[in-house]
Amino acid sequence: MRSFGSDTRLPTLAVVLDIIRERTTVSRVELAEATGLTQATMTHAVRKLIALGFVQEVGTARSGRGTPRRLLGLRPEACYMVGIQFDRFSAVGVVVDLAGRIVAQREMPGPADREPGEVVPEFAAHVEAMLESAAVDRSAVLGIGLATYGPQDRDAGVLLTPQPTPAWLGYPLATTLTEATGLPVVIENDATAAGIGVQTLGTASSSFAVVFMSGGIGSGVIIDGHPYRGATSNGLELGHISVDALGERCGCGNRGCLDTIAGPMAIAGRALEDPALSARLGLGGDPLSDFTRVGRAAVAGDAAAAALIEVSTQTLAVATVTLVNLFDVARVVLAGNAFAEFGTTYREALQDVLDRSVFMRHVHSVRVELADNISHAAAVGGAVVVLRNLLESPNLGERAALRPGGEDRARQAR
Amino acid sequence: MRSFGSDTRLPTLAVVLDIIRERTTVSRVELAEATGLTQATMTHAVRKLIALGFVQEVGTARSGRGTPRRLLGLRPEACYMVGIQFDRFSAVGVVVDLAGRIVAQREMPGPADREPGEVVPEFAAHVEAMLESAAVDRSAVLGIGLATYGPQDRDAGVLLTPQPTPAWLGYPLATTLTEATGLPVVIENDATAAGIGVQTLGTASSSFAVVFMSGGIGSGVIIDGHPYRGATSNGLELGHISVDALGERCGCGNRGCLDTIAGPMAIAGRALEDPALSARLGLGGDPLSDFTRVGRAAVAGDAAAAALIEVSTQTLAVATVTLVNLFDVARVVLAGNAFAEFGTTYREALQDVLDRSVFMRHVHSVRVELADNISHAAAVGGAVVVLRNLLESPNLGERAALRPGGEDRARQAR
Repeated sequence: MRSFGSDTRLPTLAVVLDIIRERTTVSRVELAEATGLTQATMTHAVRKLIALGFVQEVGTARSGRGTPRRLLGLRPEACYMVGIQFDRFSAVGVVVDLAGRIVAQREMPGPADREPGEVVPEFAAHVEAMLESAAVDRSAVLGIGLATYGPQDRDAGVLLTPQPTPAWLGYPLATTLTEATGLPVVIENDATAAGIGVQTLGTASSSFAVVFMSGGIGSGVIIDGHPYRGATSNGLELGHISVDALGERCGCGNRGCLDTIAGPMAIAGRALEDPALSARLGLGGDPLSDFTRVGRAAVAGDAAAAALIEVSTQTLAVATVTLVNLFDVARVVLAGNAFAEFGTTYREALQDVLDRSVFMRHVHSVRVELADNISHAAAVGGAVVVLRNLLESPNLGERAALRPGGEDRARQAR
Repeated sequence: MRSFGSDTRLPTLAVVLDIIRERTTVSRVELAEATGLTQATMTHAVRKLIALGFVQEVGTARSGRGTPRRLLGLRPEACYMVGIQFDRFSAVGVVVDLAGRIVAQREMPGPADREPGEVVPEFAAHVEAMLESAAVDRSAVLGIGLATYGPQDRDAGVLLTPQPTPAWLGYPLATTLTEATGLPVVIENDATAAGIGVQTLGTASSSFAVVFMSGGIGSGVIIDGHPYRGATSNGLELGHISVDALGERCGCGNRGCLDTIAGPMAIAGRALEDPALSARLGLGGDPLSDFTRVGRAAVAGDAAAAALIEVSTQTLAVATVTLVNLFDVARVVLAGNAFAEFGTTYREALQDVLDRSVFMRHVHSVRVELADNISHAAAVGGAVVVLRNLLESPNLGERAALRPGGEDRARQAR
């Protein structure tokens, strides 16, 4: 069967909800204009969102001589979602409300070399603590989105890689966290999540690429508002494209992978090979912290540190040109905690190289930007994926009745 | 405005027509099942296709105890489309019928260093000759699709590159060929056209990548049945991704571009630098012919030729791993006349490297194949784009009445 079938079940509710969120208040007519949906489809979608308790009428507006239009607005407190972005050496968690606003956030340790059986209960404890700190009723939480590295089996909620330890390969990550928290759990690629987070946190932009750098380097593409997923959501592995065809063999099977040359672990490793630099900066912690020290020193004028960061920026720029030349986007957004302190250095280097090198630069320019809330964008995106999955679910009506944001709640609110 | 609006105008007619073509005969119920469309949408689409004269009822079939189902089939002779794929040194033209079958084809000279004002009338003459040889009534021809290199402005029907001469940059290619032939003309990226041609000529596969090699190297991605287009249809420039970050500056602005190392012109150029090889193979013609001689000699066991082709296959393999690691496809199809004689050499080399190196190989395998009708796939795709544009046109009804495949014709046929 053609996959055309799935295209016809477009995520109408998610799109309508996004536009209401972006515009704060909006009439049905404006919604129909903004989406290109028919009045009937729009009316149906709005009715469903009101029944879910997600949207309510918030007043009227008169435009010109016409009859006043009833305005719709979100009920931000209707539900909450949890997002956790983690890689080997770091993890951040957020709780966001229906409007995408962060109501709680915390940094947590990454797995390092620990087994998943030890890490998952720790994540669960952090989730409980975040919900408590935000005073969010657990019954109002739709679920948890785990944004992390690949390859993944999103449907099964498992990682398909023996990183950081062999036990992680095929470990029932989603199921175990669900058992520990009582909340539905989905997994998502971290860079794609960052893209969804950028859509949520920033102004609407229908098409852009994300370059994501945390423990490793990844990328995401949002095209016409939807994440590009390919066959199995395991594409966009920017960290594992070759920037040196004759380079060293990477664990992934490829040679001269970007991540092994430009990634935080590679730069931290090279810094440790320089005893003077290493001593000067007090290196020897986890690689992401060491990388941050090198980056700080580079910004402060340390020549040896700057040379290492230059390798990273220039090589990442080459790979970003590849990304743009293949996906044809006019905007590249940098996200991830490795960009948090000196993202501007990367932004400027990438912009400079892209301005000179991208294939379609005479057709359109390509703008490089830093994400808002650069360290949390992926976690926010992970949280939003939980909501999107619910809105795209075919048995949404059924769940609506069970959910606290559903009709009972909506009635209470009237 | 969100581009969501355009998503809601899915090319229903094109999808329905494709399925009727693939299955030869099909009932409305089977069509609804195959597309996931509602019975109402399907009935509407079929009615429109019958009104256009593209589809007719061809009999009934009884399945089980139910009432007999009326079967639908194409009217292949309802209309014809012309496709021309050209690059600097070669051009091929085809005329295809509504079923996608080639009813005429011919090779023609590429532009070489000639001006567009000289080449376009030549193309027009070839079109006339093909239509005559196939005895196709000009009034039954929907238009011409030009499949060629980029960057392009598809809407304006112009190339945005000064190749092969400065006069080609912004030259009104589509308009001029329309004036010369009286037929509507569209332009399309050659590799994307090859993808559409592969869909048309082969069995249906909803997602795959194309690596296209003719005068240069390009790529295309068909995902869920639709070409990936990015912001301006100027992505997927595989020939201009860097496979050597410190390599030579390419005319495009990037360094170490695949095309300058692995492409036919690069290989032909390197062969000419070897006087013995050059003399042995009688090189010195146009680069594409020289490349073909080198490839033939490699297959025949010439060590110097084989070494050059090895550079091409191995470097193309590195770039193809990048393509797959970014787009996550399970199938890569090779198309274009540069693969015509020794595509198997490339297929085997790419399969070998991909099996070892692609990031998601433990999630799914990636199969490398040669396109059916490898030299004409892009021209066929160019032709099919003309039909798809018509079927996606909002004023299709209006055109239907004017077009020979329209209601008048359908009446005559009854």
